[in-house]
Amino acid sequence: MTTALDRLAGCHCLVTGGAGFIGSNLVRALLDLGARVAVVDALYPRHGGDPRNLEGLDVQFIQTDIADHRAVVKVATRAEIIFNLAGQTSHVDSMTNPAFDLDVNTRSQVLFLQMLSEVDPRNRVVFASTRQLFGRPRYLPVDDEHPVDPVDVNGITKYAAEQFHRLFGEVHGLPWVILRLTNVYGPRQRLRGDHLGFLPVFIRRALNGEAIQVFGEGDQLRDCLHVDDVVDCLIRAAVADDAVGEVFTIGHDERLSVREIAEHVIAAAGRGMVDHVPWPEGRDEIDIGSYYADYSKAKRLLGWTPRTSFADGIRRTVDFYDAHRPWYL
Amino acid sequence: MTTALDRLAGCHCLVTGGAGFIGSNLVRALLDLGARVAVVDALYPRHGGDPRNLEGLDVQFIQTDIADHRAVVKVATRAEIIFNLAGQTSHVDSMTNPAFDLDVNTRSQVLFLQMLSEVDPRNRVVFASTRQLFGRPRYLPVDDEHPVDPVDVNGITKYAAEQFHRLFGEVHGLPWVILRLTNVYGPRQRLRGDHLGFLPVFIRRALNGEAIQVFGEGDQLRDCLHVDDVVDCLIRAAVADDAVGEVFTIGHDERLSVREIAEHVIAAAGRGMVDHVPWPEGRDEIDIGSYYADYSKAKRLLGWTPRTSFADGIRRTVDFYDAHRPWYL
Repeated sequence: MTTALDRLAGCHCLVTGGAGFIGSNLVRALLDLGARVAVVDALYPRHGGDPRNLEGLDVQFIQTDIADHRAVVKVATRAEIIFNLAGQTSHVDSMTNPAFDLDVNTRSQVLFLQMLSEVDPRNRVVFASTRQLFGRPRYLPVDDEHPVDPVDVNGITKYAAEQFHRLFGEVHGLPWVILRLTNVYGPRQRLRGDHLGFLPVFIRRALNGEAIQVFGEGDQLRDCLHVDDVVDCLIRAAVADDAVGEVFTIGHDERLSVREIAEHVIAAAGRGMVDHVPWPEGRDEIDIGSYYADYSKAKRLLGWTPRTSFADGIRRTVDFYDAHRPWYL
Repeated sequence: MTTALDRLAGCHCLVTGGAGFIGSNLVRALLDLGARVAVVDALYPRHGGDPRNLEGLDVQFIQTDIADHRAVVKVATRAEIIFNLAGQTSHVDSMTNPAFDLDVNTRSQVLFLQMLSEVDPRNRVVFASTRQLFGRPRYLPVDDEHPVDPVDVNGITKYAAEQFHRLFGEVHGLPWVILRLTNVYGPRQRLRGDHLGFLPVFIRRALNGEAIQVFGEGDQLRDCLHVDDVVDCLIRAAVADDAVGEVFTIGHDERLSVREIAEHVIAAAGRGMVDHVPWPEGRDEIDIGSYYADYSKAKRLLGWTPRTSFADGIRRTVDFYDAHRPWYL
């Protein structure tokens, strides 16, 4: 990968959603590799984008929606690689306001892809998608062949965005790569609010010395990815020769129960406790059972494997939030 | 089916897209069965909706988009059955303006379904979907298990709308039925413009005594449905006990090559001719090969089979347009 990564030195990269959790970690890694980075991020109120995530970094920052042609076209024209991470990621919010989720996750993506095709359809687009679109796993581990059957708005709108990437690839030759991410944790994640997945809630509650609520026994398995591993995968997807036109399901060999995850978080924080509570009514709607992914295609074509164990990753994560407490808590 | 159809007498039905081709034929059938019918249709300029399709009929007509909560909520509250036919159906237009296609086919549907769930989530919604979402058939005949892999914007946006019907069914209990229609022909179809599929173009050109252009030999097979058969299927889907939560792929046993279809149209019209022209550049993008559907599930659960042969149906269709020439040509 050394040669491939060398290509990023001096390379113009555009990161949509670059002020967010994964985006801002990616921006740092790109800058370390010598890339020139532009960020487009709308900083929508309940999303993960926060300008402080980019504080002190040498990036061009444009606060707007990716569909804002006039504001984005110039950086899009200059970009040689586009990391397309902008999106609404909250399952909860997608159910409360489906039309807004569709606007952000699908409509803006369509207009953005249209612009990219007009500007220069040869530049690679790496799109961050989600395991959400699989719905309830029909078999485990979930792989790239697993049927798509979303059980929430977010899964539908992100899948439509995936399909638009494929379509613009077919019709305009746009070279796309799609990564379907599982639960991600690490520095610069938004911890406020309970709407961005269970990991930030667990971390916040432990750091505040509060109880972490676990439904029932918390036996459902999950694979969690440290953001550094995700960033590594995104960058490999941007430079690997065989990545174009491929969908990669990204996960971890380490499969932990939700209860074990809570226990790891508490151990790392040195505070907090597990509080087993009964499943709420409507469990059938929210419980997708266990989920973990088979990432062998990413290993084969991108040379990627996750390198961070949860125990190690969560310790570093907790250290980060302890050191930046006022920002995130 | 007699008893089931009796239920429609006095029943309040809402037909979205009811001024369009299939919608207006459905409205007529519903009125014949004694139903009380409200129509919501935005009459978007290039779509199939035309108020003349409803001329002289005793219906409540509201010209607006289905997402227009204020204008639609009253008829939606009154409706016991919703025939949800509103949509952008042009493949060509969906590629020219993807965001508008998404707005009409997905965004408006989301808001409409949200309204239905709030109003009374027990009323059945019959959604008219399209074979477009299958893309290029992987096997023939295409059945309900065939993978979805759209190759155009229209297929993506209609599939997302299907998924939203399923989701609102799961979350709010909305009883939905989905019909995936193939090529439909018959009275009250918009013949002007070349953007609404090949059948209306063939019919218009024959009626005008013009040449019907057929790419290459025109060997690709299609199954075509007379609108009366589609209307029959829609109504059965609205009343059949076992239809809720089912997706039905609707087709015809009679499979004709595009060339044969053109010849039938010319024979029925008594004018026109076939003009074989070379495939345009980019054939790979537009040619999906042969398509025809296995409708056995509709036969089993709805008791439906298509009853109109193409020769007979196209003759009646041509007679209609001859009699209403100034309206449609």
